[in-house]
Amino acid sequence: MHAWRSWWLRFSEFESLQMRKFVGETAKTLIANNTIASVVKLNPHHRPSSPNYCSNRSHLPPSLYSPISSYSIMASTPPVTVESLNPKVLKCEYAVRGEIVSVAEKLQEDLQANPGSHPFEEILYCNIGNPQHLGQKPITFFREVGMLQLHCDEKLLFPLMCVMLCQVLALCDHPALLDKRETMGLFSVDSIKRASLILDQIPGRATGAYSHSQGIKGLRDTIAAGIEARDGFPADPNDLFLTDGASPGVHMMMQLLIRSENDGILCPIPQYPLYSASIALHGGTLVRYYLDEATGWGLEISELKKQLDAAKQKGITVRALVAINPGNPTGQVLAEDNQRQIVDFCKKEGLVLLADEVYQENIYAPDKKFHSFKKICRSMGYGDKDIPLVSFQSVSKGYHGECGKRGGYMEVTGFSPEVRQQFYKVASVNLCSNISGQILASLVMSPPKVGDESYDGYMGERDGILKSLARRAKTLEDAFNSLEGVSCNRAEGAMYLFPNIRLPNKAIKAAEGAKKAADAYYAIRLLNATGVVVVPGSGFGQVPGSWHFRCTILPQEDKIPAIVSKLTDFHKKFMDEFRD
Amino acid sequence: MHAWRSWWLRFSEFESLQMRKFVGETAKTLIANNTIASVVKLNPHHRPSSPNYCSNRSHLPPSLYSPISSYSIMASTPPVTVESLNPKVLKCEYAVRGEIVSVAEKLQEDLQANPGSHPFEEILYCNIGNPQHLGQKPITFFREVGMLQLHCDEKLLFPLMCVMLCQVLALCDHPALLDKRETMGLFSVDSIKRASLILDQIPGRATGAYSHSQGIKGLRDTIAAGIEARDGFPADPNDLFLTDGASPGVHMMMQLLIRSENDGILCPIPQYPLYSASIALHGGTLVRYYLDEATGWGLEISELKKQLDAAKQKGITVRALVAINPGNPTGQVLAEDNQRQIVDFCKKEGLVLLADEVYQENIYAPDKKFHSFKKICRSMGYGDKDIPLVSFQSVSKGYHGECGKRGGYMEVTGFSPEVRQQFYKVASVNLCSNISGQILASLVMSPPKVGDESYDGYMGERDGILKSLARRAKTLEDAFNSLEGVSCNRAEGAMYLFPNIRLPNKAIKAAEGAKKAADAYYAIRLLNATGVVVVPGSGFGQVPGSWHFRCTILPQEDKIPAIVSKLTDFHKKFMDEFRD
Repeated sequence: MHAWRSWWLRFSEFESLQMRKFVGETAKTLIANNTIASVVKLNPHHRPSSPNYCSNRSHLPPSLYSPISSYSIMASTPPVTVESLNPKVLKCEYAVRGEIVSVAEKLQEDLQANPGSHPFEEILYCNIGNPQHLGQKPITFFREVGMLQLHCDEKLLFPLMCVMLCQVLALCDHPALLDKRETMGLFSVDSIKRASLILDQIPGRATGAYSHSQGIKGLRDTIAAGIEARDGFPADPNDLFLTDGASPGVHMMMQLLIRSENDGILCPIPQYPLYSASIALHGGTLVRYYLDEATGWGLEISELKKQLDAAKQKGITVRALVAINPGNPTGQVLAEDNQRQIVDFCKKEGLVLLADEVYQENIYAPDKKFHSFKKICRSMGYGDKDIPLVSFQSVSKGYHGECGKRGGYMEVTGFSPEVRQQFYKVASVNLCSNISGQILASLVMSPPKVGDESYDGYMGERDGILKSLARRAKTLEDAFNSLEGVSCNRAEGAMYLFPNIRLPNKAIKAAEGAKKAADAYYAIRLLNATGVVVVPGSGFGQVPGSWHFRCTILPQEDKIPAIVSKLTDFHKKFMDEFRD
Repeated sequence: MHAWRSWWLRFSEFESLQMRKFVGETAKTLIANNTIASVVKLNPHHRPSSPNYCSNRSHLPPSLYSPISSYSIMASTPPVTVESLNPKVLKCEYAVRGEIVSVAEKLQEDLQANPGSHPFEEILYCNIGNPQHLGQKPITFFREVGMLQLHCDEKLLFPLMCVMLCQVLALCDHPALLDKRETMGLFSVDSIKRASLILDQIPGRATGAYSHSQGIKGLRDTIAAGIEARDGFPADPNDLFLTDGASPGVHMMMQLLIRSENDGILCPIPQYPLYSASIALHGGTLVRYYLDEATGWGLEISELKKQLDAAKQKGITVRALVAINPGNPTGQVLAEDNQRQIVDFCKKEGLVLLADEVYQENIYAPDKKFHSFKKICRSMGYGDKDIPLVSFQSVSKGYHGECGKRGGYMEVTGFSPEVRQQFYKVASVNLCSNISGQILASLVMSPPKVGDESYDGYMGERDGILKSLARRAKTLEDAFNSLEGVSCNRAEGAMYLFPNIRLPNKAIKAAEGAKKAADAYYAIRLLNATGVVVVPGSGFGQVPGSWHFRCTILPQEDKIPAIVSKLTDFHKKFMDEFRD
């Protein structure tokens, strides 16, 4: 705790360098002349490394260079400073875990150390799609089967029996083990069958061993079958790369496609900042296309074309288009004909279509349905050779929300064998994704089917979660729309609402005074007043001059009323304070 | 199986483009004029994108550009081809999973499909440090406690009881569950205590939730305590970044340090190719320093200095030095005074010391001991501010070899708070490492202690594995040294032997004929004749004109005699065939 505090103190000190956004932004500030001196004070390792710096020697206390300094014997080569880090890293921003989360963690520690030290009793994390962190129970079937693999490489172990007992224990309300004999009958035959099938699919039944670089072949067979069942079109297990969640797959594609800042990637704005971060880290150019808030975050081909042409004018080679469906942070679900237009646009312009489909199970609007871009392509008659398409899926989202397992896959189609070999090589450098995550990915794509013993229970859990999420989304949407100056599109899918707040000029000025974006200022004030954590819209991108925040719909249903009233009270007070 | 075969066929076709090394090399070959035509045949997506190409139009069948081609309506923007991929990716090589593994997989399929189709009955994988793939049993204590976390987020579940049963089942030799009541007493109190402690350390007991970007704080506390116990010097949990194995940590450091090809990283040669691959992927320059095979792969400071100066002469800014201790693929264990020299060298030259210490538990030479570079630095009086040091640890190695769990950490010291914030930001972009791996990393750094009920059993398993590995290493070392023209340093640690083979000129010429490195030719011949898979030395780097291969010591002890006799017979025949 002490160490953490000391770290926090250092961080606060650092923060006092008038951090405007998260560290990416701060780094830029640090490089500016007027803060170099403070950098040096904070970082005795610092040595002149830029003309800027020299022009500022006068700012420095000479003592820093006295022979008694433990750094006076430092090498002539500059040690690592923010200025000597990879500038691509400095450019990268990731607001979802930015300043707001650091402040929230600090507040949580305060509450633990001194209960009552703040006007709220708990931190309500509405900032990130992390369902089980907020109390969502895992889907029994996935865990039941998933557990098995942890045991299977102990040769003498009989995981089936073990899981049966785990389940007994899960169901029973006291730990007495020996009384549970009579409950053995509770277990589903299909989960046991599935478990042994998976064990047979793992070479040597060794979950403790590295797998094939693309993931265990048998699990990829299962996922491919799941994709075929979903789309009604063939899927090839050798097109699948199993990953530790979807993020490493996105990074891998950016790494493969981006050659220099002259390569651009078309991304929706607002967007999940993994994309802007990954593009920055790999030295490419983010080519923004704006979603139309007025039409429920509509994706207009005319806007794509406009932005593509503008990028070309600047000498940018646009290599790929990112489509996030359902949308994050915007929650819209693309219409089938809109998807066809997007596919034709990519085909015509020779773009790789990077389809973020991690929320494919999260559909709440009765009038909307998820269609994978692969299904759309195939239904349009485009075969494997016609269009390069990458579909990302994750075990972290959906109704299961197994974020901590870090499982996912990408389905890679429309690339030549020798390009695919390069994908394979890059995947190989990290050996493989974690086996528990691989197994979970196979389960998510092959849940119990009608007629399976566990089907009803599974569907009950699944529908219970999805229906509850739909209710939470509606309640929060209505609450936001009832607030002065706030309008909020419905969440047709995904896990978020992205309300638009028309902030008074006074508030915007106050934010400027605090060196924060106006929505970041609002979010920090909200957090400090209520313990509710949301992510400022500026972290996702938005039409300049508009302000938003992203609020997840994941807090458990019994928490929603409290969140609504906290938000409502705070917003009223905030507007009373700043109304023009 | 069919899909796999078709993929394989495509790969073989591709391979027939006279692949000299793994795909990185191949990609370069593809770009060379004389293969462009074949590329285009393989990849109808191909469009002119390089001057090279234009200068070779004459090589191309005109039909490829006829209007009937399904690509004639393709965009003016070139689709993805090997030539339009990130050239850093093309440069990257990773032989450990290169051609040799692809051929081995093909042979294994043949053996399954047509037993007796080859002069051997099984593939003996001596190519990669993957113990459980070769039948090593997991350490009971780690699995026993590790299992718990899979259950703990089912609120009604009593994981302690569950694990007790898992263990009963692990020990019992038949699946009858209900007879096992009398064996309940077998469980260790400390593993149960540890399990509940870990559950309490996980916020909300949710192993299905994302954790702090650096890993769960309580687990980092445990790891820090383990490092303190190991070194006798303080460790700060906030210096720890938990990772999916060690590789992502290495990539992260390369990403942070490398700004351009003018930044260099000093790496040992021979080296584990993760380093050369990661440096290539991040666009830096590999600055080789050669280990001295004659003195048991000694690391000479004079060699470091020579290579550093040579790099500076070329305008390279050397940013870091990689030290792999114990060595991979070379198996040497650095002497304490040698480590002090290395630390002083880094201090004097202002280099980040990247210490690959994933084999810290794998010491076989009675006269050798592992010392962490952090301990060495602190014992020399260098504090946190004196030298930037990153130590990498993994759950994949050691005596536990939990490769499939993808757990590990890096301990990051000697960087300023604002630089650390950049590390944190980059870690945040991928959210967190998998929770099972995080828990396993904490267990590996805090095994049972004297007085714990499970201590004796744990030590029995641990010493059993390490002593057996030492015996296997010695047997293989002696076998290699008995071969004509082969000399092999002892494996003081790690999991590999790296014998030197003096190949006859005839063999070298034959290899040239097959467009392979001589040691790659030897390894492929060995594989095709015996099913034994080793990695050619050219994949790790070696003194030009010398030839080696890396052979793990991991096959189970009962397999070693067969491997020795297969190797011996093959080598005799090979030398008889090629002896000058």
